[in-house]
Amino acid sequence: MIKIAVDAMGGDYAPGEIIKGAVQAAGMRDDIQIILIGKEDVVREELKKHTFRDGQITVQNASEVIATEEPPVNAIRKKKDSSLVVGMNMVKRGEADAIVSAGSSGAILVGGQVIVGRIKGVERPPLAPLIPTEKGVSLLIDCGANVDARPSHLVQFARMGSIYMEHVVGVKSPRVAIVNIGAEEEKGNALVKETFPLLKECPGINFIGSIEAREIPHGGADVVVCEAFVGNVILKLYEGVGATLLSKVKEGMMSSLRSKIGALLVKPALKETLKSFDASKYGGAPLLGLNGLVVKTHGNSKATEVCNSIIQCVTFKEQGINEKIRESLGREKTEEGKE
Amino acid sequence: MIKIAVDAMGGDYAPGEIIKGAVQAAGMRDDIQIILIGKEDVVREELKKHTFRDGQITVQNASEVIATEEPPVNAIRKKKDSSLVVGMNMVKRGEADAIVSAGSSGAILVGGQVIVGRIKGVERPPLAPLIPTEKGVSLLIDCGANVDARPSHLVQFARMGSIYMEHVVGVKSPRVAIVNIGAEEEKGNALVKETFPLLKECPGINFIGSIEAREIPHGGADVVVCEAFVGNVILKLYEGVGATLLSKVKEGMMSSLRSKIGALLVKPALKETLKSFDASKYGGAPLLGLNGLVVKTHGNSKATEVCNSIIQCVTFKEQGINEKIRESLGREKTEEGKE
Repeated sequence: MIKIAVDAMGGDYAPGEIIKGAVQAAGMRDDIQIILIGKEDVVREELKKHTFRDGQITVQNASEVIATEEPPVNAIRKKKDSSLVVGMNMVKRGEADAIVSAGSSGAILVGGQVIVGRIKGVERPPLAPLIPTEKGVSLLIDCGANVDARPSHLVQFARMGSIYMEHVVGVKSPRVAIVNIGAEEEKGNALVKETFPLLKECPGINFIGSIEAREIPHGGADVVVCEAFVGNVILKLYEGVGATLLSKVKEGMMSSLRSKIGALLVKPALKETLKSFDASKYGGAPLLGLNGLVVKTHGNSKATEVCNSIIQCVTFKEQGINEKIRESLGREKTEEGKE
Repeated sequence: MIKIAVDAMGGDYAPGEIIKGAVQAAGMRDDIQIILIGKEDVVREELKKHTFRDGQITVQNASEVIATEEPPVNAIRKKKDSSLVVGMNMVKRGEADAIVSAGSSGAILVGGQVIVGRIKGVERPPLAPLIPTEKGVSLLIDCGANVDARPSHLVQFARMGSIYMEHVVGVKSPRVAIVNIGAEEEKGNALVKETFPLLKECPGINFIGSIEAREIPHGGADVVVCEAFVGNVILKLYEGVGATLLSKVKEGMMSSLRSKIGALLVKPALKETLKSFDASKYGGAPLLGLNGLVVKTHGNSKATEVCNSIIQCVTFKEQGINEKIRESLGREKTEEGKE
């Protein structure tokens, strides 16, 4: 039985869509147990709208909620009875294998490190979402957890990312590349230039060199390594350019009577193809390298995204990703898991 | 009379498309004179295909060509008779007001600084392309010239970018924002955190704060300030996501008979709208802050892009952009223009 804590109060559509997604996930798998964390009366009221197997979904009361705009460190320290902190403590104590939250990114990142704690040997836990490409998906790592990273961090990202892509997504010997401003080894800023030779020498990964941002959507690498600032820019620009272009396509289709008729004919086929380029269906972003699993889903996640994120936790647990990370990275360093 | 040197040998479609674009530009304006630089026999042979006003286009022989893959510093130093070096020397000596090249980016950046030289007071000359947005265009500055920039560089980018957007593009009091991973002032990496307060205090610019990458395609700022690594990632991801999405749209339209018929009806209108999101029509990227004007156009530029880049030089010169930059930045520093 895999136990997954779900932050019922975090996200733009909480608690309704979060709970709906949790119920969906429960319906898909017999071997998971979901603990919904939040204001008990609110959660129970919402649960009444759904049917589910007795005992498969339980409720854990948490009287507080962390808002998106709250300074994360403060929020984690002070709101001991918030849904996020209560859930993370359950993961820490082993009462849950994973926590899924659509709440404040900052609080999730801080809470993951401070409460759940790092695996011994992991220097910095990266946030690693899957992003759609022409060929399927790639893992973008790191994407928001650690700005101003050091070369050794990036090497660990490459190793953890490889493990994740191979065992959760199922890509054999995933191609690892570092984001750069040119394909040649001598290109780049100081961080990339220092990291490049370390990646070349790193055992156990399939390092293919630099990747220019242009090649990311084409699927030029399976594991796209970068420091968090650049990763965040990539993730958000993906969304922004996509949204703008699609609105331009719609605008074009609505601009004349002729094109409007065409649009009616084109629409179903177009919808199907564009769905494959929709980031939300790939679930949330795991914060890798923690003593447990913390998954951040997009703040505007609806039931489908929440459900997918929960199912993703099952694969993560079944494949023993944390054991593999511990094996791969644990031998090198003896740093403690908490700060 | 504005004199514009054109590197006839640089770019994927040189010399044919470059020369065609130059002839087009000459046909549009009586007040420009174009100097085509390259192997004289090759250029003259190509020119025979076109008609133009006598004396408006001249040819300057240059026996060498810098290839894209050559290490830039070496190429600039050793190939004294390359089309790029010859052209830049003409700008330096005042025999040309500007040079347009679709050749090696690295060589253009190095040559601009080493041969043409910086305006007194300018610390680093940024490469500043216009990128399409929902609302029109924004200036992305810096986008490839200076990795590992310092806060003072970014402040100068903001000031030079404002002058360019106001006087070349015609945006009154352009909104300046710094690329960041969150909207709040306390977010960001070390560089952004240090630069933010400097931009807030900077006189003469309309600083509106941070911009997340998601908002760039929506037109959230007119002058988008960032260091070169991030700028390069933004520019190239713009291209990559755009190309991938459009190929998905086409794929969707071709997936059934019904959608194929629809596609025929939709096509003309769609083409028109998407053209407005095509970066190439906005001309090349100027390297700002030099004693003269150096414009880099995309390596795969065809005649239209070359023509637009040339016309852009006219506005730059007419509006006295360099004089304005000199006035704005020249008072502060006494650094020499050449290294």
